Amino acid sequence: MVLESGRADARRAVEQGVQMSVFADATAVRRIEEGRYAVDVHPGYCIGAAPNGGYLMALLGRAAVDASPHAHPVSTATNFLRVANAGAPAEIVVEPRKEGRTAATSLVSLVQDGKRIVDALVTTGTLEPGTDPDWVGEPPAVPVPPLEDCTGARPPGDENGFADHVDMRFDRTTMGWLDGNPSGRPEVRAWFRLPDGHEPDPYVLALAVDALPPVSLNLGANGWAPTVELTWHMRAVPAPGWLALHGSGRLLTGGWFDEEVEVWDSAGRLVAQSRQLARVPKGGFR
Amino acid sequence: MVLESGRADARRAVEQGVQMSVFADATAVRRIEEGRYAVDVHPGYCIGAAPNGGYLMALLGRAAVDASPHAHPVSTATNFLRVANAGAPAEIVVEPRKEGRTAATSLVSLVQDGKRIVDALVTTGTLEPGTDPDWVGEPPAVPVPPLEDCTGARPPGDENGFADHVDMRFDRTTMGWLDGNPSGRPEVRAWFRLPDGHEPDPYVLALAVDALPPVSLNLGANGWAPTVELTWHMRAVPAPGWLALHGSGRLLTGGWFDEEVEVWDSAGRLVAQSRQLARVPKGGFR
Repeated sequence: MVLESGRADARRAVEQGVQMSVFADATAVRRIEEGRYAVDVHPGYCIGAAPNGGYLMALLGRAAVDASPHAHPVSTATNFLRVANAGAPAEIVVEPRKEGRTAATSLVSLVQDGKRIVDALVTTGTLEPGTDPDWVGEPPAVPVPPLEDCTGARPPGDENGFADHVDMRFDRTTMGWLDGNPSGRPEVRAWFRLPDGHEPDPYVLALAVDALPPVSLNLGANGWAPTVELTWHMRAVPAPGWLALHGSGRLLTGGWFDEEVEVWDSAGRLVAQSRQLARVPKGGFR
Repeated sequence: MVLESGRADARRAVEQGVQMSVFADATAVRRIEEGRYAVDVHPGYCIGAAPNGGYLMALLGRAAVDASPHAHPVSTATNFLRVANAGAPAEIVVEPRKEGRTAATSLVSLVQDGKRIVDALVTTGTLEPGTDPDWVGEPPAVPVPPLEDCTGARPPGDENGFADHVDMRFDRTTMGWLDGNPSGRPEVRAWFRLPDGHEPDPYVLALAVDALPPVSLNLGANGWAPTVELTWHMRAVPAPGWLALHGSGRLLTGGWFDEEVEVWDSAGRLVAQSRQLARVPKGGFR
């Protein structure tokens, strides 16, 4: 579902610094008092019954930036402790740690029913749009194929909301696991945007770095993989349009694996980097 | 200064699960009460006047593991807030967040003179030694050259302790910045061990992932680069002997750069991975 007229509205809204969309509503944070925010965990960004980690990081990021003198969540290191309850209220607590001219840091926690669900160390800063990099490495050696050659696959276990709230087009060569033919390489590549016309911003990047199906599926692992820790860095202000997501991993051992995601925007900029450490669920391999 | 007899003693000590060394003493944590540890910030692991971040992470890791039912600091996400005072006492506070059968998480802070110096989210787990990986990526395409072709360079600003407490042999092609000829690529490669005979363990890995000179020096940046955030993952129990460190970066822009370090042990295992986000100091470029 792609709302083209919505996208035009959204582009104007981005130019004005405001976006109105399902995603903006779903990640709204309401300040209760200094360092405390009320949120509703939206039911539409779930993998199965579990709200997506990237969606929760978007919530944390919005609260952290609201409580900070800086504009962007430059670095976010996240521990996922418990599964959040979707469709239920929660609270975000922002504890400032240090405020400087270039960066400010805080400990940000999502709390629900008196339990900590997610902890994050968030560093905020302000990135200037359109800055030319002093140095940038090569884009990933295997690019995401042209959009028309990619497939809008709906991974199993993803029928309950998340797939309806993102528009992802996958490199088919990295989706063989869907048909029982995992590629044998921990890689997933896809185009990504929001179907509600919400253009890329820092919180869309938070969603994007945890949006790919686990790279472990291409190594023959069964089922979804719970993230233990995910750190992501916002590296540039993203341009409007599609984002290219490159997911890869280095090591799967003893039930632990890493997954790196690079996000490149439509202007060819590296706009976000992440690494997560995750677990292959019990049941192991096919 | 390499103490070969010390190394033989150390190897026996590793086999017995105990190591006695300068590094072990320098990273000792003394439990005051549940979740509180007294430490002395050793003066011998400083870059200039600032205790090295990896050394501080080793301290945090030892306290986190002592307070945990698990054996290893599997994931450590660190915010560096202030420069620690070397040669002075400090306290480590471990706040447990969640304890599970596979992993436990805690918020761990180094506090000195009533101020938070470092915050870290630490996940502990237990890795089995000698586990064969289910999948591992290729070692870095440019290997560290043979030891005899590497140089024990002492970087400027590194005359006050750190260089005396590590034994590092650098790939000369990545150290051109020392002579005013930066390579133009954000890469540094080196062999690493401790001169006191302390064999690689989780805390040596914490030191190793932050031991290289900043890769930004090879892009013509001046001076040391303060780390804002560093996340590292311990991926396997390291074998005795030299560690190979591969440092690289993807993007330097607006004064921010990333640095990834992979650590491979003498048995050819990927034992640690890190990424840090750091600042190019004021004064910028040559």
